[in-house]
Amino acid sequence: MNKAKVRIGIIGTGAIGGFYGALLARAGFDVHFLLRSEYAAVRDNGVQIDSAVHGTLKVYPAQAYAHVGQMPPCEWLLVGAKTTANAELAAVIAQAAAPGAKVVLLQNGLDVEEQLRPLLPEHLHLLGGLCFICVNRTAPGVVQHQALGAVNLGYHSGPAASGAVRQGITDEGAALFREAGIESQAMANLAQARWQKLVWNVPYNGLSVLLRASTTPLMADPNSRALIQALMADVVEGARACGHELPSGYAEHLFAITAQMPDYWPSMYHDFAQQRPLELAAIYAAPLARARAAGCSLPRIEALHQALAFLSA
Amino acid sequence: MNKAKVRIGIIGTGAIGGFYGALLARAGFDVHFLLRSEYAAVRDNGVQIDSAVHGTLKVYPAQAYAHVGQMPPCEWLLVGAKTTANAELAAVIAQAAAPGAKVVLLQNGLDVEEQLRPLLPEHLHLLGGLCFICVNRTAPGVVQHQALGAVNLGYHSGPAASGAVRQGITDEGAALFREAGIESQAMANLAQARWQKLVWNVPYNGLSVLLRASTTPLMADPNSRALIQALMADVVEGARACGHELPSGYAEHLFAITAQMPDYWPSMYHDFAQQRPLELAAIYAAPLARARAAGCSLPRIEALHQALAFLSA
Repeated sequence: MNKAKVRIGIIGTGAIGGFYGALLARAGFDVHFLLRSEYAAVRDNGVQIDSAVHGTLKVYPAQAYAHVGQMPPCEWLLVGAKTTANAELAAVIAQAAAPGAKVVLLQNGLDVEEQLRPLLPEHLHLLGGLCFICVNRTAPGVVQHQALGAVNLGYHSGPAASGAVRQGITDEGAALFREAGIESQAMANLAQARWQKLVWNVPYNGLSVLLRASTTPLMADPNSRALIQALMADVVEGARACGHELPSGYAEHLFAITAQMPDYWPSMYHDFAQQRPLELAAIYAAPLARARAAGCSLPRIEALHQALAFLSA
Repeated sequence: MNKAKVRIGIIGTGAIGGFYGALLARAGFDVHFLLRSEYAAVRDNGVQIDSAVHGTLKVYPAQAYAHVGQMPPCEWLLVGAKTTANAELAAVIAQAAAPGAKVVLLQNGLDVEEQLRPLLPEHLHLLGGLCFICVNRTAPGVVQHQALGAVNLGYHSGPAASGAVRQGITDEGAALFREAGIESQAMANLAQARWQKLVWNVPYNGLSVLLRASTTPLMADPNSRALIQALMADVVEGARACGHELPSGYAEHLFAITAQMPDYWPSMYHDFAQQRPLELAAIYAAPLARARAAGCSLPRIEALHQALAFLSA
């Protein structure tokens, strides 16, 4: 792989986009960052990752842009923006993409590709990426990385004519992350991968807001532990109703990992604390609607969603 | 009824005890207030009710006591203390009671009489009273009354030998409240009356703490409205599983009343804000245990209980 020739655009350089973009740039890929409010900071100081795993890592100068028209067309686009901004992002993505580019939504929740797909040109491949990582943005262009980092990729839709081509593209994406020292797997079934990620996001994101609590206190109290386990079991049940039998013991695995993680505030808590829109549609409403359509009622998740919707109103 | 000869003791002169004690005193009953931290204030200034319904009402001087040993033995005892204090109150109640006295627990939740009964002498009649009222204590000896006021009474246990005697005692209690201008009904089935009251307490008490919200915003948002209705329906289902078919339309009735009430912070919110113990055992754990024993799972209420238990820890 001639990494200098693989041009990667990062759309939405928050914690996720900044972290993966910086690691890919460090590995020698030709990485371009599209920014809004953080443009001046990144132009002046680059992108900095303070990582408990990789140490401090600085991309300077960074190839940073305030306007998509100034960016060169990219072969891969990693979208790390919030799902709440996807509709506005479609035109930006289309403009930043080279013909036949691969667009990877590094986002949580369900139906995010379904929402974006009709707004994108047909020549673009659309993939989803599920990030298992503890990061947050601490200042413009500065990302704190606490733990983990794996990205699992799945093909959603686009011009790939066969399963083999789709598989090839997904493998290529995973290889690209691995070249940058990031664990990455190609997932044959994106919808199932998205449900799997929800097993973490549904309990921890919502409860961090509702109970104003990070992972350590949530994992220390028997009541919140029981509630998390019940919510996880509900997600597994919803997935099953929608035809996705998650790997046996998967919820228990995520629960055990979280207990060992450094204390972490999920992204929804940061969104709430900073009065940004919460990703309720992708993480709660879409899975609830899918499960309901499959005849499966998930009253606990529904109650959590209603409580969060009240708080975010 | 020679009201001056009916001696009534008020145990726990908070909002509930203060309000009903003051109205009974105003009506001419011989009312005695047992107090702890508020004793000096009530001795010096009496009990004052600032009522949106009855105007300002002052009992001064009030027959107030700091020690139960100084109180005369009472024929009726109204217990307005929190359920969380019941175990410690048993000895006080026994000491304040005349032989064959009637003890009325003006408290919310389930199994409160069951918990107290074994700690009380056998000669005492034990009744439960469900108060539909918006009151709160604004200063020592001062109670703000916003709306409503009805008390429904039911016989729990004691020396009454027959249903007719039990009915007579319950009717006598209800008559006593009505003499003081308070709506009051004798309920044939106390357990059912307690479930009925839970239809209000389960959603509004818990959500006021979890969402830091009083009734007006809770009734204004479509998400919290839907959550309240779902929780109410769960209580109705739990009651049914335990053999109590609540009156048809009862939840809808309470929902409509609450929408018309002045903005109200339920008592659990005040307890939470002032870092007092929450009445989780009586309002959540006991009904959940009863329903579970009847084979009925109530995941939404269970989740709410777990969240509240986390917050109160």
